[in-house]
Amino acid sequence: MKQIEKLSENSSYTAINLGNLEELMSYSLIHPVNKRLIEGKVFLKDPTQATGTEISFNSLQPKSEQPYFHIHYKNEETYLILKGYGFFQVDEDCFKIKEGSVIRVAPQGKRGICNASDETMIYMVVQSKQNSLEEYTTADGERVPVEPKWR
Amino acid sequence: MKQIEKLSENSSYTAINLGNLEELMSYSLIHPVNKRLIEGKVFLKDPTQATGTEISFNSLQPKSEQPYFHIHYKNEETYLILKGYGFFQVDEDCFKIKEGSVIRVAPQGKRGICNASDETMIYMVVQSKQNSLEEYTTADGERVPVEPKWR
Repeated sequence: MKQIEKLSENSSYTAINLGNLEELMSYSLIHPVNKRLIEGKVFLKDPTQATGTEISFNSLQPKSEQPYFHIHYKNEETYLILKGYGFFQVDEDCFKIKEGSVIRVAPQGKRGICNASDETMIYMVVQSKQNSLEEYTTADGERVPVEPKWR
Repeated sequence: MKQIEKLSENSSYTAINLGNLEELMSYSLIHPVNKRLIEGKVFLKDPTQATGTEISFNSLQPKSEQPYFHIHYKNEETYLILKGYGFFQVDEDCFKIKEGSVIRVAPQGKRGICNASDETMIYMVVQSKQNSLEEYTTADGERVPVEPKWR
C-alpha cells in the first residue's frame, strides 16, 4: 500500500506528495464503518491538516461503478472529473460526465457515479460544510511583498 | 474567451463541463480589483452554486510565476498540482512541487508559486473558511438505496 510523502511544513502550512495521478490505484484504505478495503482512494484532510475541507482523490476501475449511492448530513460535495468518462446520477437525474465535468451536490442529494470508459477514472471530491463560506476569491485576500527564493 | 457549459441541475445539484484540462488556458477573467486580464483561470463557486468552497482551476505558462505573493483573512487554501513542476513558497520556506503535490496553507501564510517546467502547469486551489468543517468523511454520510439509471 502506497504511503504519502511529507514534503515540508511550518505553522502556516503542510505540503505532501501523492505521486503521479496515474498511480492513485496504489492507495487504499480500510472503510471505518464496514472495515472493507477500498482501493484507489486517498483522503487529504489529516495528511495536510486541513480544517475547512476533506478533499479526496478517487479512482474507479474501467467499466465499474461506486457500489452504493449516498447522502450527507451537513456537507456539500463537489466532484471534479480528471480522467475517464461515464455517468453521474443525483436523485432521478442521470447524465454523462467526462474529463472537466464538475458537479456540486447539496447534502440531501442522493448521488452515484459510474466509469463507462476503458481507462481508470480519476476524480476528486471536495467536502465542505454547506453555507460555510463567507468572503471568497479576491475579497478575502491581500497581496504582500515577498522576495521569491526560487529565483 | 471560453464559456462554461451547463450540464444539468435540480435543487440538489449543479453540474457543468469545463472541457479538457489541457484547454484551461482558454479561460480568462478580469480581476475585480485591478481590472487586469488573468488568463488560464476559472472560478467554480458561482457556476456550480457552491456554498462551502471557492474552487478554481489555474494554469501557469512554461517558466513563469504568479506575479505576487498573497495572504487570506478567513480562508484556508489547498493547492493541488495536476501537471508540471516548479516551486512553492510559504513565508521563508521554498520547496519543490510537481504533479501530485498538495499544499494546505493557513490564512496568514504568505504564499507564491512558480512553474519551472517547459509545459503549462495546471493546478487547483480550494478556498474554504478555516476551521469550518465539523463531521467529515464517512461520519457525515449515509448510504441510500437508489437504482442506477445508467445500467
